[in-house]
Amino acid sequence: MNSQSNRDEIVWRDLSPLIAPKSVAIIGASQRSSELLAREPRGNRVIRNLKNFGFAGRIVAVNPKYTEVMDCQCYPDLASIPEAPDCVVLAVPNRHVPDLLEAAAAAGVRAAVVFAAGFAEIGGEGKARQARLEAFSKERGFLICGPNCYGVLNVYGKAPLFASTIPAGFLAGPMALVSQSGGLSTTIANALMLNRHVGLSHIISCGNQAGATVEEYFNYLIEDENTRVVAAFVEGFKEPAKLLAVARKANQRDKPIIILKGGRSEVSQRAAATHSGSLAGAAEVIDAAFRQTGIVQVKSINELIDTVSIFSCEGYIKKYKGGRGIGILSGSGGECTLASDAAANAGLEVPELTASTKAELQEAVADFGNMNNPLDGTGAMFDDEKIFPRLLQGLIDDANIDLVNINLEANDPRPRELKSGNRFALLIEKAAAASAKPIATFSSVVGGPVDRDILLPLRAAGVPLLEGAECATAALRNLADYYQYRQAWQNKPAEQSEAPSRPQSRLPSGILPAQAAFSLFESYGIPIVPTKLAHSAEEAGRAAERMGFPVVLKVESAQVSHKSDVGGVALGLSSATEVRDGFARIQQQVSAQAPNAKIDGIVVQRMADSGVEMILGVKRDPMFGPVVLCGFGGVLVELLKDVAIGIPPLSKEQARGMISRLRGVAILDGLRGQPPADTDALCEAIVAVSRLAVSLGDQLEGLDINPLIVQSKGAVAVDALVQIT
Amino acid sequence: MNSQSNRDEIVWRDLSPLIAPKSVAIIGASQRSSELLAREPRGNRVIRNLKNFGFAGRIVAVNPKYTEVMDCQCYPDLASIPEAPDCVVLAVPNRHVPDLLEAAAAAGVRAAVVFAAGFAEIGGEGKARQARLEAFSKERGFLICGPNCYGVLNVYGKAPLFASTIPAGFLAGPMALVSQSGGLSTTIANALMLNRHVGLSHIISCGNQAGATVEEYFNYLIEDENTRVVAAFVEGFKEPAKLLAVARKANQRDKPIIILKGGRSEVSQRAAATHSGSLAGAAEVIDAAFRQTGIVQVKSINELIDTVSIFSCEGYIKKYKGGRGIGILSGSGGECTLASDAAANAGLEVPELTASTKAELQEAVADFGNMNNPLDGTGAMFDDEKIFPRLLQGLIDDANIDLVNINLEANDPRPRELKSGNRFALLIEKAAAASAKPIATFSSVVGGPVDRDILLPLRAAGVPLLEGAECATAALRNLADYYQYRQAWQNKPAEQSEAPSRPQSRLPSGILPAQAAFSLFESYGIPIVPTKLAHSAEEAGRAAERMGFPVVLKVESAQVSHKSDVGGVALGLSSATEVRDGFARIQQQVSAQAPNAKIDGIVVQRMADSGVEMILGVKRDPMFGPVVLCGFGGVLVELLKDVAIGIPPLSKEQARGMISRLRGVAILDGLRGQPPADTDALCEAIVAVSRLAVSLGDQLEGLDINPLIVQSKGAVAVDALVQIT
Repeated sequence: MNSQSNRDEIVWRDLSPLIAPKSVAIIGASQRSSELLAREPRGNRVIRNLKNFGFAGRIVAVNPKYTEVMDCQCYPDLASIPEAPDCVVLAVPNRHVPDLLEAAAAAGVRAAVVFAAGFAEIGGEGKARQARLEAFSKERGFLICGPNCYGVLNVYGKAPLFASTIPAGFLAGPMALVSQSGGLSTTIANALMLNRHVGLSHIISCGNQAGATVEEYFNYLIEDENTRVVAAFVEGFKEPAKLLAVARKANQRDKPIIILKGGRSEVSQRAAATHSGSLAGAAEVIDAAFRQTGIVQVKSINELIDTVSIFSCEGYIKKYKGGRGIGILSGSGGECTLASDAAANAGLEVPELTASTKAELQEAVADFGNMNNPLDGTGAMFDDEKIFPRLLQGLIDDANIDLVNINLEANDPRPRELKSGNRFALLIEKAAAASAKPIATFSSVVGGPVDRDILLPLRAAGVPLLEGAECATAALRNLADYYQYRQAWQNKPAEQSEAPSRPQSRLPSGILPAQAAFSLFESYGIPIVPTKLAHSAEEAGRAAERMGFPVVLKVESAQVSHKSDVGGVALGLSSATEVRDGFARIQQQVSAQAPNAKIDGIVVQRMADSGVEMILGVKRDPMFGPVVLCGFGGVLVELLKDVAIGIPPLSKEQARGMISRLRGVAILDGLRGQPPADTDALCEAIVAVSRLAVSLGDQLEGLDINPLIVQSKGAVAVDALVQIT
Repeated sequence: MNSQSNRDEIVWRDLSPLIAPKSVAIIGASQRSSELLAREPRGNRVIRNLKNFGFAGRIVAVNPKYTEVMDCQCYPDLASIPEAPDCVVLAVPNRHVPDLLEAAAAAGVRAAVVFAAGFAEIGGEGKARQARLEAFSKERGFLICGPNCYGVLNVYGKAPLFASTIPAGFLAGPMALVSQSGGLSTTIANALMLNRHVGLSHIISCGNQAGATVEEYFNYLIEDENTRVVAAFVEGFKEPAKLLAVARKANQRDKPIIILKGGRSEVSQRAAATHSGSLAGAAEVIDAAFRQTGIVQVKSINELIDTVSIFSCEGYIKKYKGGRGIGILSGSGGECTLASDAAANAGLEVPELTASTKAELQEAVADFGNMNNPLDGTGAMFDDEKIFPRLLQGLIDDANIDLVNINLEANDPRPRELKSGNRFALLIEKAAAASAKPIATFSSVVGGPVDRDILLPLRAAGVPLLEGAECATAALRNLADYYQYRQAWQNKPAEQSEAPSRPQSRLPSGILPAQAAFSLFESYGIPIVPTKLAHSAEEAGRAAERMGFPVVLKVESAQVSHKSDVGGVALGLSSATEVRDGFARIQQQVSAQAPNAKIDGIVVQRMADSGVEMILGVKRDPMFGPVVLCGFGGVLVELLKDVAIGIPPLSKEQARGMISRLRGVAILDGLRGQPPADTDALCEAIVAVSRLAVSLGDQLEGLDINPLIVQSKGAVAVDALVQIT
């Protein structure tokens, strides 16, 4: 990918024939039936799903053995179907797939769902098989879901081209789920529907993405009127530029994209490469891409479930007005402690209650001691019915609280008569109806049967049910981050928009000479320490006088890599005479110690004022192309890989965000009595490097400014290495 | 606490009258009944619990209004009971508690359970009320469980002095649960019994620990023959020395103690202090204490549940022979990826399978591509019954795999006929019966009803059921850590045993003069750079000649804190003449610039060879007393708080462990061509400082060696500050 394509007009294909077909042909259904639903042929299962769901279009089967399958007309081949269906479902072994796709295209079909495994995910011949599918899809403009997938389930369109049996009572709703894993698509969807009462608009098990990508599905779903939230399990992206573009579109429409990205560790990247044949990409670069585009990243299936529970609950979301102050209420002091720990870990605040709330609560419910956040209702809350609503109202009304989070054991596994959750749920429901502040509930334990008598009324009242303090607070933090991103984006559209840039004319391959690199920097506004290539001692002396003393001299020669080893460096020269002498000495030493080196000249450079030494550079990521890196020189980078990553083009605001995420950020404030460094100048340097990376595009192999000295006023690049492809 | 008490003989009180009473009196039971179990008076609930559990001893009630309550004889007061009961249960408001305890002691009762809240957890008068209880317990040797608790439930002793209704079908087993939170005690116990089929020997809701501490309960449970595993939720410890002692005892008997420690964040420490009135302690010091004594620390309730599920499953534990190689099997490629990520995060290895396993599996189950770990059974595993057992056996037999972890959806919320977990469970059960390697299962999602038809037979076959890849791998990592700790401890008892030390005679209060500090260091074997306090220029010159050049001079004066500001330092002196001149110059400059300073002499110090600059010190922790800290000088300590903590006495092995946990540890290997530093010498310095801290005990307020230069051979303290109380 070329970062320039970020700004190219992106053309989105219409996925309707695949996701919302008006007619379907099934290949791989049979009159053989099976007692066990699990062993039913997949083709039959699709027909059953279509009928159960009430698919309004025409369903036909293709099988030379029959004229009818499951009450659907059956044709011997695709060509015999009088009117070409929009989509064909291939429930056949992988070896038959290529020929059948050819036949489908020939018959005028525009899309296919391919369930079979045995493609890129198995390597070897499977990879070749998939390459044929990809080429076919591209050349013919033919849409393919899969291979190696469960297919597409369009809930409102009543089109379940889906390989897994769909349970009765499927819950329709605003959430679309895209999953590279078929198994996880149903596992996550069932948990959402049955444990959280979250309804779905689509399940798209996209498999190996041979002929339709995750990015394309996202685009379809962002444009779909029934979908308000998109959640996904993804191992690898195929079209990163489209990912960034669709993320922007999603933001404009306030449709959050929530992604669980598998394949962060080395082993799992091996596993992911094996089974889905897609590129995993560096975890840190993915993090940066998501952060920059407002994609919500979750780190576990349960964080995904709880985050979706929040984002899909309209009654909750519309009450949220930003802020990170969480108010916690529990009848267990222990849970108050754990939930506070979890909130702190998640990055939420647990503010003290206002003095007036404290005083009011103190008066209303005596004998409790200090009423503060987290609010401990103690055992008394279970005995005295008046206490809980009073405490709850205290949190709702408190000016310091943005999010009310109530501990409620909705998954208490004990018999009904021993449970107390139900009566508290009624009280929460009542309070929520009158509350302008968002209220959620969370259980202490994750797991056990969720009581639907608690779940359903609360959800209807705009109160999502979450499980476990850790996931609950992570989900609320995700909401706060998303909201904050949208706010920043709405308030500063100019800042967030892309930096202007012009394409750079072609540069010579290889490592740029110092002078050329520095000229390039200058033309992009990257601050450099005054530097001049001199070809004579006289010229060097004059250059030094112009730039001011002290200066350093460094030999310039493509054959010399370690300049000081061959006497090619002179430091701290403070007069024209010293410079001229130094020039001669270097010439002589290098000629003596590296007789084969061709000396292109000697660089004269003003010695930079001291400051914080940083590194700033550009590297090529296999997915996103050139990415900008910034960190502190020394142990922080070397040892702790404390590097901030940004995907160009970068705004100054984004540069500031990058720096703020460095663990050593306090160094810029001035350690041990040092003056604070000019962070603003650093941000401008980052933006300038980003602009250069965009302009150079694919020409740029890598760039390393080391060090960039960030002074108390200004910043300068002292040494740089630019590699052109 | 004084660290010396670590080695004092610890006297444990006998908690039997409290935990295993032979007769009980209940105060606070009434003839008033309630329809709602939840609102039944707590005293009545205790009687009901005792009867339902089949308590074999005598139960009497105390209430002046009745002669009989719930078929138990009722006395007007404690003094009227003919034979004093072992334990009295006080189900009364807090204001009655002190008098009733007095009456109980007077009547010959030895223990009480106090449910009431309103003690230290509410601050103010509550604190005073609790102080009275603590004093009473100490003076009279009277045992108190609580206040602010649910009480004690002894399962095998059939003694549930417990305030919460105990559900029918309570499951007896090897796990004892101690919880400072009453609410969490039942929440966690119910989840363990009903979602994991883990049986319990005790639930002890210890509340504010006024008259029996968490440490004492641990000791009772470690000695209890029915208990094999102790799990706990703790906010604060009252007797840290006893904690370390009981942890050692638990290790000797191979009874793991698993602790969820609440109150790690600032806010939660505020909350914990509020509701339980105990000291939370610095999280990092607690971590060090747990690590050093083999206590298993978990970070969430669900990690506790899954860890206990593993440790309490005898059939599983006895097959585990150490090692961190986890073999993962799933029918979902996505879950393979996520589980690998989780394993890497947890600190487990996901090794490649041996070539022979790969070849065998490749042959047995064709069309799958590369058979490797994690093993992806794909959809084919669901269709072809022969595949799953073959893959499972492949993992079991593979030499690289220590722990087999199978993805199984035991909590699939869908209707039975759509679930596939049951048939896989049968196959796992069969394989486990023949397997010498431990096998566990984990679900993708945490939550939903656990199918008991899967759970019970698997658990009986020694296969624990876990939920979610994150908790499952954390639990297995906890097992690996525990096993490794025990192995190290068994193999090197001498190394792990306490360093010998002698008590140090009383030192003068305040900051020790340099000479005194260095003499003290020398006597404890802490290496120091040669240093001598000289009182004349001649003496300084002679000292410098003895120690060798170059040397530095530093003025010694209690009135001078910044020596170089007053001309009190001379560096890099390389002859006796220079030293003599320097001495005179310093005398003159300091006298001029700090006329009021009394000069005690001038310190002559050999300039140390260069090396890695570290800090090494001792600080006082409010819980554990003196703790040893070690870290790298510079940004790592200043900015990232990258400090390793050890609780003395420390063995060299433990010192090595401390260093290995520093994020900058690679600095010691030699960065940028530097020679590796003498880690061994650093460890010896840590041990020596630990020895000094133990000997000085309460005398030592703090100690700071900054820097300790760790050279390529040896290490030396260059500057030090020792503060005596």
